[in-house]
Amino acid sequence: MKIAVDAMGSDSHPQPDVEGAVWAAREHDVKIIFVGKQNIVEPELAKHDLSGLDISLVHASEVIEMKEHPAAAAKSKKDSSMVVGMRMLKKGDVDAFVSVGNSGGVLAVALLYLGRIKGVKRPALSAVFPTRKGNCFLLDVGANTDCKPMYLLQFAIMGSVYAERVLGITNPRVAIVSNGEEEGKGNTLVQETYPLLKASGLNFVGNAEGKDIAAGFADVIVTDGFTGNVVVKFAEGVAGFIFDLIKEGILSSPVTKLGGLLAQPAFMQIKKRLDYREYGGVPLLGVDGTVIMGHGRSDSLAIKNAIRAAKQAVEKGTIDAIRDVIAQSLAASSAV
Amino acid sequence: MKIAVDAMGSDSHPQPDVEGAVWAAREHDVKIIFVGKQNIVEPELAKHDLSGLDISLVHASEVIEMKEHPAAAAKSKKDSSMVVGMRMLKKGDVDAFVSVGNSGGVLAVALLYLGRIKGVKRPALSAVFPTRKGNCFLLDVGANTDCKPMYLLQFAIMGSVYAERVLGITNPRVAIVSNGEEEGKGNTLVQETYPLLKASGLNFVGNAEGKDIAAGFADVIVTDGFTGNVVVKFAEGVAGFIFDLIKEGILSSPVTKLGGLLAQPAFMQIKKRLDYREYGGVPLLGVDGTVIMGHGRSDSLAIKNAIRAAKQAVEKGTIDAIRDVIAQSLAASSAV
Repeated sequence: MKIAVDAMGSDSHPQPDVEGAVWAAREHDVKIIFVGKQNIVEPELAKHDLSGLDISLVHASEVIEMKEHPAAAAKSKKDSSMVVGMRMLKKGDVDAFVSVGNSGGVLAVALLYLGRIKGVKRPALSAVFPTRKGNCFLLDVGANTDCKPMYLLQFAIMGSVYAERVLGITNPRVAIVSNGEEEGKGNTLVQETYPLLKASGLNFVGNAEGKDIAAGFADVIVTDGFTGNVVVKFAEGVAGFIFDLIKEGILSSPVTKLGGLLAQPAFMQIKKRLDYREYGGVPLLGVDGTVIMGHGRSDSLAIKNAIRAAKQAVEKGTIDAIRDVIAQSLAASSAV
Repeated sequence: MKIAVDAMGSDSHPQPDVEGAVWAAREHDVKIIFVGKQNIVEPELAKHDLSGLDISLVHASEVIEMKEHPAAAAKSKKDSSMVVGMRMLKKGDVDAFVSVGNSGGVLAVALLYLGRIKGVKRPALSAVFPTRKGNCFLLDVGANTDCKPMYLLQFAIMGSVYAERVLGITNPRVAIVSNGEEEGKGNTLVQETYPLLKASGLNFVGNAEGKDIAAGFADVIVTDGFTGNVVVKFAEGVAGFIFDLIKEGILSSPVTKLGGLLAQPAFMQIKKRLDYREYGGVPLLGVDGTVIMGHGRSDSLAIKNAIRAAKQAVEKGTIDAIRDVIAQSLAASSAV
């Protein structure tokens, strides 16, 4: 299996991108094709022992930066690492493309050069969330700020396939974010989407209130990209705030400081549990190829795990499975 | 000053409601008129020393329960404590009404018996959030799941008045929840509201992403009631989850347990900082009278603080101030 990796993706590229991918090549037995600036990536590659690994580099003279306007950059930077990598995926030269760069950029480049799976109305950005009962897969977290009921239905369908095949969750429970548990609660979008989800054949468990998300109420939770984005960023903000308060509180006296020191193993455990790096990357669902994205802050562990996710998605035939269920869903709705 | 207090509001009514209001009567020098079932409230009142306090009871034979459908209950339960209290406020028999019961119920009863301030399109439920820089006042958190730009503009106007007069924040910074910082980011509602806020004369500081809320980016943050409700409940869920993980981690070994014990003062401090009870109740903004609401889980401290908020709101002429700025805002927009 060949995986193209954007060597210019992470905030501290190319170091984590290269190290993580080389690590993945050895641990997960995949061929890696780096895409990026030759004069920057080659010296980084030289730092690693590549013996026995199938690793190559394709030069791309441009980079879509984190702060750039995604759609404009996708169009103008035709020789960027994202565009070059995505075109390799389109042509079938590689099985998947992994980038932890500008997520709007990956989305725009994928729409432009890869296109959507037939029948898919909109692609969705996704996130994996730690919960009391494991992880939950949330989408859309930012690709579509204004959604229609059919988009959310398709997010649920695609999310279920991914959760089942890549995250290994049998018959995943699907929910929709709402402001109340009961059927009938929600804004107009939720109220109109509810009956579609109910009739979808998915394992739909109903509305998920804000508190239900962390409680582990469902495995796959759909929402519009506006609400999803706010929730994901809010979670980061709240968690960071709480941990900073704890740190501050613990450092406030010698006794609490000693206590904090003794309790440190507990905190390390929690940090690991809440660590986004453990889940690897997340898929861009709905585009016609396996694209795995990640946080710009990704380190080599996160990148290695993103590549593991890409490998699993390809092995489990995720794209073809999505193609099939979307086609079935459209056939069913047109038959009504 | 006379304040009507719903004695049947909290989950464990009438104990916290009565205790908190008696406490407030002594500490904040207000007259309290309890509203509730005489046979239930009187025995509770008998437990307290009421010497020197001006406390009375008005009988109401019905209660709007937490699980009831708000609009239906507001209509049918004409002798409920909420309806009786709200009618006293409407008639001018009291200066404010405080209830920590079913928040949808308070909203429905207020709309039915009190009405809106002239010119206000929709009332808003609100919440106070701890942040890195103090507190932030978020609205709407559930009254209006689908909003129009004008609603959000009015939430900002009303929220600013409340923050300035009751929370004591000079020239409060106002923001709107969005999925990106830059102007132009957001769903259609946010994009259409942005220019209204910019032209409003408020101290508008722009879009607040999810992460900005806890960071203390603004003092007053507006959003539609769907997003606001999801965010508030999500915050509770995430905070509870993190603290449970910490507890679990600390209890996992004798050493971490000892550490936790020594660090306990730090945790108590954080708990206090994040404690919703400290902020007192929150206003129902936009209705034509001072109505303060609170969490059903409120204890006597929370109830006492809710009554303090009611007193401050009345003393500072909040309703009249909102009436004035809304009228000015409507005059300005019709003059354009």
